Amino acid sequence: MALSRWGTESEARDLGEGVRGLLRDVLGVTAESGLRFDPAAVTASPSRLTDSDLAELAGVVGRGDVSTDDAQRLPRARGKSTPDLLSWRLRPDVVCPDAVVAPRDDDEVAALLDWCGIEGVAIVPFGGGTSVVGGLTPDAGGHRAVLSLDLAHFDSLESIDPESGEAVLGAGLTGPRAEELLAEHGFSLGHFPQSFPYATIGGYAMTRSSGQASAGYGRFDEMVRGLTVVTPVGVVEAGRAPASAAGPDLRQWLLGSEGAFGVCTRVRLRVHPAPDTVRHEAFRFPDFSTGAAALRAVEQQGTGPTVIRLSDETETAVNLATATESIGTESIGTESVGEQADGAGGEPGGCLCLTLFEGTAEHTRSRNAETRDVLLAHGGTPLGAGPAEAWEHGRFGAPVLRDALLDNGALVETLETATDWSNLSALRDAVAQALTTSLEASGTPALVMCHISHVYPTGASLYFTVVAGQRGEDPVEQWMAAKRAASEAIVGAGGTITHHHAVGVDHRSYLEAEIGEVGVRMLRAVKHAVDPHGVCNPGTLIP
Amino acid sequence: MALSRWGTESEARDLGEGVRGLLRDVLGVTAESGLRFDPAAVTASPSRLTDSDLAELAGVVGRGDVSTDDAQRLPRARGKSTPDLLSWRLRPDVVCPDAVVAPRDDDEVAALLDWCGIEGVAIVPFGGGTSVVGGLTPDAGGHRAVLSLDLAHFDSLESIDPESGEAVLGAGLTGPRAEELLAEHGFSLGHFPQSFPYATIGGYAMTRSSGQASAGYGRFDEMVRGLTVVTPVGVVEAGRAPASAAGPDLRQWLLGSEGAFGVCTRVRLRVHPAPDTVRHEAFRFPDFSTGAAALRAVEQQGTGPTVIRLSDETETAVNLATATESIGTESIGTESVGEQADGAGGEPGGCLCLTLFEGTAEHTRSRNAETRDVLLAHGGTPLGAGPAEAWEHGRFGAPVLRDALLDNGALVETLETATDWSNLSALRDAVAQALTTSLEASGTPALVMCHISHVYPTGASLYFTVVAGQRGEDPVEQWMAAKRAASEAIVGAGGTITHHHAVGVDHRSYLEAEIGEVGVRMLRAVKHAVDPHGVCNPGTLIP
Repeated sequence: MALSRWGTESEARDLGEGVRGLLRDVLGVTAESGLRFDPAAVTASPSRLTDSDLAELAGVVGRGDVSTDDAQRLPRARGKSTPDLLSWRLRPDVVCPDAVVAPRDDDEVAALLDWCGIEGVAIVPFGGGTSVVGGLTPDAGGHRAVLSLDLAHFDSLESIDPESGEAVLGAGLTGPRAEELLAEHGFSLGHFPQSFPYATIGGYAMTRSSGQASAGYGRFDEMVRGLTVVTPVGVVEAGRAPASAAGPDLRQWLLGSEGAFGVCTRVRLRVHPAPDTVRHEAFRFPDFSTGAAALRAVEQQGTGPTVIRLSDETETAVNLATATESIGTESIGTESVGEQADGAGGEPGGCLCLTLFEGTAEHTRSRNAETRDVLLAHGGTPLGAGPAEAWEHGRFGAPVLRDALLDNGALVETLETATDWSNLSALRDAVAQALTTSLEASGTPALVMCHISHVYPTGASLYFTVVAGQRGEDPVEQWMAAKRAASEAIVGAGGTITHHHAVGVDHRSYLEAEIGEVGVRMLRAVKHAVDPHGVCNPGTLIP
Repeated sequence: MALSRWGTESEARDLGEGVRGLLRDVLGVTAESGLRFDPAAVTASPSRLTDSDLAELAGVVGRGDVSTDDAQRLPRARGKSTPDLLSWRLRPDVVCPDAVVAPRDDDEVAALLDWCGIEGVAIVPFGGGTSVVGGLTPDAGGHRAVLSLDLAHFDSLESIDPESGEAVLGAGLTGPRAEELLAEHGFSLGHFPQSFPYATIGGYAMTRSSGQASAGYGRFDEMVRGLTVVTPVGVVEAGRAPASAAGPDLRQWLLGSEGAFGVCTRVRLRVHPAPDTVRHEAFRFPDFSTGAAALRAVEQQGTGPTVIRLSDETETAVNLATATESIGTESIGTESVGEQADGAGGEPGGCLCLTLFEGTAEHTRSRNAETRDVLLAHGGTPLGAGPAEAWEHGRFGAPVLRDALLDNGALVETLETATDWSNLSALRDAVAQALTTSLEASGTPALVMCHISHVYPTGASLYFTVVAGQRGEDPVEQWMAAKRAASEAIVGAGGTITHHHAVGVDHRSYLEAEIGEVGVRMLRAVKHAVDPHGVCNPGTLIP
């Protein structure tokens, strides 16, 4: 990944003339008005480690790697939120981890944690570097230095149990590599978050990732049958049985712990036979609340889609869901779902709903039929397979689109929350209003789009995409103000501060509102018990 | 419930002559050889509370109740395991809680915990009193007295959200009463453990209960959307959204905590519209491993039964699954499934598999068809609806059957575990062997039956029912030796020490083998953080 982008340099493409015209006319921004990234201006903070430290570290990690090269430290200094990406342009003096250390096994991780405790050096685990919540921030937490602990060597399919449908995967495996290794055995994980091309198994576990097919295969935390976390006081192997009544569920206390309790080195996961059939079907609903009620009925009746999503009117109108693949070749929105629906005899506009079904032929047929019946009974109009196929084809493209929009002077970011069905509309309104008000106050119109990305029997997640114009000297602070407004709206309207992006630095100050003073006390007690010197990712999670 | 029985006195029935003959001929036991319960011999330990304590307690719980009556204390002194039931016969000097206290709201519970911390008095929460793992043991944990904290006043449906499919239920509500209150709104919880007639919502939550319909509706821990636990340091309200990435899942740390962190007073639960269609179908498999492979295929393909169970050859032969309703009228086993299958043209014997489907007509039709296809493809022979209907009709009867067998000199108990599919057969063999060896060493033949009670994509639970003859002066110790052998076999063979009965006193010494030294350290840290004086159920859970 490029420093100031989500994707690689070769993935970067410019926007078509139509979108550039819209950005100019509506948001008043152009490629010239935006912040530019100057690689030559970048400087890394000097490493605070001594030669003696480095010699000791080399001994501690044995066969592993230790580096203080800027080329290693810089990409591990920041994640991939919009503030991160803009900071490469605005703040080229980069606070970096003092070294990058890549141990090769649990014993080396344990030895490294021992050394850190004795020496007063913090660690920040590094997987794919895709955090959008500041989870990589190299905060030494009062210690004299901080290491980036790269899990790259934990990159194997350690074992597979085809009968139980379980595989043990190294924490450093990326999504594509994990799928590749599983495919050799006829299996798939079925976890496809937008960060899939880069994010790692350990990152999914430690941040409670949720994927686009989570309606069918479950959130990542639901797929985890066991995991290994190396803490400063010893190794935890959690998850002995598929289900247990042997006290609190240790797995669910380690999942989402974001490196604050130790380093996740491997995860035992449920895997599925690669599906032999995939069916796609799209629908249009006249408005968001009608569509939301239909998704609710589908999920509460358990009709079984693998993917189900609903874009609101604005997101449907700009055709965001299906248009990311056309960046640079066509302008976004010129082939809108509304127009497609027109061709099929329906009304333009409305809200696009995408469904996808995976499994055996019989399974997908019955699930598709039952789901379609419910959606039609709740006011949906069928649009055929096309829009759902287009979405699937381009589904990892949105962050690359963000890169292009940022390059063209736009301010673009996403945020997400979840709540009960009965509170969904109020939460959506509150967040959209907060974002719009804050951004308008900074002097730009704001396009706030929303979709239901994940459904549960009792509620759903809301995924917001915001496009505005960069304004002022400091667009990072411009966005942070909007983000604060949105976060306060989420807390006030009863949503969770994060449905699948995790806590990191960015949401930490909202955690107590979510879990209460006693909840925070419980977290701190565990942190202190397993990380008595406070060396494990001190900047993240725990208030 | 009667002191020495599971059921009420009026439920008690004797066995038919056929079964009594079998017990006499095979196990060498008769009604005369068994231990008798003598209510007149029962004495309660005197309360250690002073008049001044009781006056203070009356003030602390305000509108609630305080009692030191033996009639209140005795039923809260022991649970309903076979050792508990036999102890009423063998050990009539009963160690009782020093008082029974029934607060009426969270504030009264909090005030009570404050008082306990100051005064050095422990509490044991009491719901339905159905623990089979010693969870009610009135262990003062070194304090000067112990109270039974009865949740009977937390007995209302506090709110219902029909749109989200959620209800807030008081922790003291029994299963039948909760279903009755929900039925007024057209909803059902769908949680039917064998303890259903007596056990409470709070008990289900605090012990990670699993019900007979958990394949369809999920384990109780999966149904919980939120819960309130009053701890000595404050109230925790866990569960803000249907799903969240805001750190470790607090709910999953409170669930299964068995009162060791505080008192659960209410639970917010997913509820379902009462199903409009129920379909039943039974199958026979030639042997257990063929049947287990079929259940595995059903669950891994997600064909969607609400209930699916498989009895092993022995359990099928004695027809335990469907015969409990015939206690006292017919002998068990005379109308075996093998014979029914004969009538349907199949072979006798084999293993009985029961399935049940709930939902809409279309949903149950497709799920039943898809499940049947998989079961037939894996060697099943259809037996029609009859055996599954008979099982459903008598499904809460097994504990009453246990009462009758205990009265006739038999030693009867159940235990359960779970593991991955690939380890299921080895675990079953190890546990059965351990039980048989231990009981034979005590001088009795042992009938060890087993069924798969719950299925998961990656594994299943094993539920063992053991019938032997009471031997020696102390059949409690006779059973405890067999239980220790089984528990060691479970630990050695990689199973969980408990799939749904919980930890309590009985499994506490096996917990560290399951969650490791660091896991125990985490539990103790939380315990100390929220219960600094150690007054919350000190005898349970935490090693």
